[in-house]
Amino acid sequence: MYNGDAIVAACDQLAAISADAGQLTRCYLTPEHARANAQLAQWMQDAGMQTWQDAAGNQWGRLAGSDPSLPALVLGSHSDSVINAGRYDGPLGVLLAIGVVARLNAAAQRPARSIEVVAFADEEGTRFGTALLGSRAVAGTWDSAWWDIVGRDGVTLRQAFVDFGLDPERVNEAALAPEHIAGYLEAHIEQGPVLEAERRSLGVVTAIAGARRFVITISGEAGHAGTTPLALRRDALSGAAEAIVAIETLARAAGIVATVGSLETFPGAVNVIPGEVRMTLDIRAERDEDRDRTLNGIRETCDRIGETRGLAWHWQETHSAPAVACAPRLVETLTKAIDAATGTAAGPVLRLASGAGHDGMAMAAVCDIGMLFVRCDRGISHHPDESVQARDVDDALNAMSQAVSALVV
Amino acid sequence: MYNGDAIVAACDQLAAISADAGQLTRCYLTPEHARANAQLAQWMQDAGMQTWQDAAGNQWGRLAGSDPSLPALVLGSHSDSVINAGRYDGPLGVLLAIGVVARLNAAAQRPARSIEVVAFADEEGTRFGTALLGSRAVAGTWDSAWWDIVGRDGVTLRQAFVDFGLDPERVNEAALAPEHIAGYLEAHIEQGPVLEAERRSLGVVTAIAGARRFVITISGEAGHAGTTPLALRRDALSGAAEAIVAIETLARAAGIVATVGSLETFPGAVNVIPGEVRMTLDIRAERDEDRDRTLNGIRETCDRIGETRGLAWHWQETHSAPAVACAPRLVETLTKAIDAATGTAAGPVLRLASGAGHDGMAMAAVCDIGMLFVRCDRGISHHPDESVQARDVDDALNAMSQAVSALVV
Repeated sequence: MYNGDAIVAACDQLAAISADAGQLTRCYLTPEHARANAQLAQWMQDAGMQTWQDAAGNQWGRLAGSDPSLPALVLGSHSDSVINAGRYDGPLGVLLAIGVVARLNAAAQRPARSIEVVAFADEEGTRFGTALLGSRAVAGTWDSAWWDIVGRDGVTLRQAFVDFGLDPERVNEAALAPEHIAGYLEAHIEQGPVLEAERRSLGVVTAIAGARRFVITISGEAGHAGTTPLALRRDALSGAAEAIVAIETLARAAGIVATVGSLETFPGAVNVIPGEVRMTLDIRAERDEDRDRTLNGIRETCDRIGETRGLAWHWQETHSAPAVACAPRLVETLTKAIDAATGTAAGPVLRLASGAGHDGMAMAAVCDIGMLFVRCDRGISHHPDESVQARDVDDALNAMSQAVSALVV
Repeated sequence: MYNGDAIVAACDQLAAISADAGQLTRCYLTPEHARANAQLAQWMQDAGMQTWQDAAGNQWGRLAGSDPSLPALVLGSHSDSVINAGRYDGPLGVLLAIGVVARLNAAAQRPARSIEVVAFADEEGTRFGTALLGSRAVAGTWDSAWWDIVGRDGVTLRQAFVDFGLDPERVNEAALAPEHIAGYLEAHIEQGPVLEAERRSLGVVTAIAGARRFVITISGEAGHAGTTPLALRRDALSGAAEAIVAIETLARAAGIVATVGSLETFPGAVNVIPGEVRMTLDIRAERDEDRDRTLNGIRETCDRIGETRGLAWHWQETHSAPAVACAPRLVETLTKAIDAATGTAAGPVLRLASGAGHDGMAMAAVCDIGMLFVRCDRGISHHPDESVQARDVDDALNAMSQAVSALVV
């Protein structure tokens, strides 16, 4: 695990541990989960760590520091996957963390502060629909209402714990006290196209964006496409189109992202004016106030469109999560480390918000968090084509090593 | 049939002749068709006409003129319906034609020119998917390729002819020679909201609009709704929205109608940028050159949107029909008659193009055509709520009577 090639090779090896032979699918509390933990534990031990599986099924390794009174620095990411996943979303961060420790260990460097590496066992929420179960157990924010959630295989979370050999009554033992943790650092593929477009191998994450999601129903009046003049129409799709253009304009002006991912027309016939449209909106920003201000602007614009066109708008919020800021001190440490690892020729280190969710969102409840993004091919993720370059992983290993060294001395 | 009340009552009575007890559905070459023809023949005879059913199943009545050397004036509309239809789309025009003749007959007025009333047996195309079969038989534009069309009940058109007691080999006997016809006049409900919005009982039709229809596929690139900045997206739905707004603007500027009735997004998930959109376009105008000029402008705009946004557009034409102009002399005769029937207080007679298709489109192949529209409630048609006011039908009967008198003297 001393370089990018070895880490990429380990990710590829881990990808063979899957529920399906032809593709990578590794869900929480499955036999694949247990086999992945065993493989990771082996690699952790090879890197000089003591290992254990916690009460929620997360896999841990520890390199003890010379001063046991200091809170530990936690490094990691997740080991679970979506269905038919790529090989680097999660495992790359776990293997980079192991690589950082392996280097320290190989150099016989014993830091003052202990380093703990974690492979969270459920970040994606693939099996039970609720994400971040692994890191929420560690952050002590487990919700007992989750026990009765039935997974996609028909098994409850409670039963899955038992089947895996875990005791639901003891899940709280996975929680770490804030005074035990000095901070949480994670490396992750970007899952977006920004680093590639900017020709950077790495970037520092400033925050994990908070998303809000809506289902919007626009009601007008169906009518004959031939006999109803435009001026007498209440065309729900024309109103929706005007709104989608405005959503893009307002989000762009605010420097945030907003997406209408799904749109349906009713009745949906070639010769009938759409009487109703149902569409979704997903809006995310680094700061909740930017997101909500833009959202207010969008809703006001939609109201105006509705008044002009005689359309009624109904908004149903289906999801809301606050943004989580990375700790400025960890952003600074990672920035210096990236700068040192990649050189300053390309200009200042690229700062970007994460539009996707990560375990840091849960960990922020108990400690400072910091994140580093690694460039991935065309931003493709959650797909077998997910890909990273070994030389970018070299940069990431160097940067993470430097940041960790600065934090554990 | 001497006034609006009687004509509306006759339409309501005819509506009871249906394939379904609870709703009006009357298709070509069905037992309901035969029963409707029998009822219409009875009313024609009551109005002093000789009656016959032609070789395509259309029902005719004739009031012989005093000068058999003159071509006959044909009045009528259709007797078939859509599924779960209204009661006036078609029958109102047939009953108004019978009413015109009934008045002449009651007044013992024998015109110089013969008047023939026709109830076309298939305008909607409900059973066989091909519209205007009745009037195309009369116009001599029957296509022998139609014989093998299988109807919604699994029976071919050929077999349906035989089952109805008609001889497919003799369908051409239904065709009328142009020299036999002095013109075709039809009254029809507007099936649109213009007359109601303008507070007019009647309007004169200038043309039957020609429609073109397309399925448009817009290809961009799917991506993560959180991690892909707006500037790096190729969002097919944002491009479609910009196009829909432009379609409306361009059609409005040209004074024609264009409709995107159906739109689908792919993959269509709340957190995925739409990589592909499939949508329909229906565009109609009184003059084909206006329609096609606007269509060219729309396509140029879409090309520009595609270049700016990195989207590929694919247009597939699924339908194209030319516009059919009403004969200026018949427009003028009907205009004078409407003016006389409704008074000039409301201003000049309202001229409008028909956005829906009518039997006149077929009849135009053999004679001049003229049409008069009757106001209907909220423009609703092809629905049980279709409704007309008896006093508007009075106006229509007066106007049609005056126009016919002017043409048959």
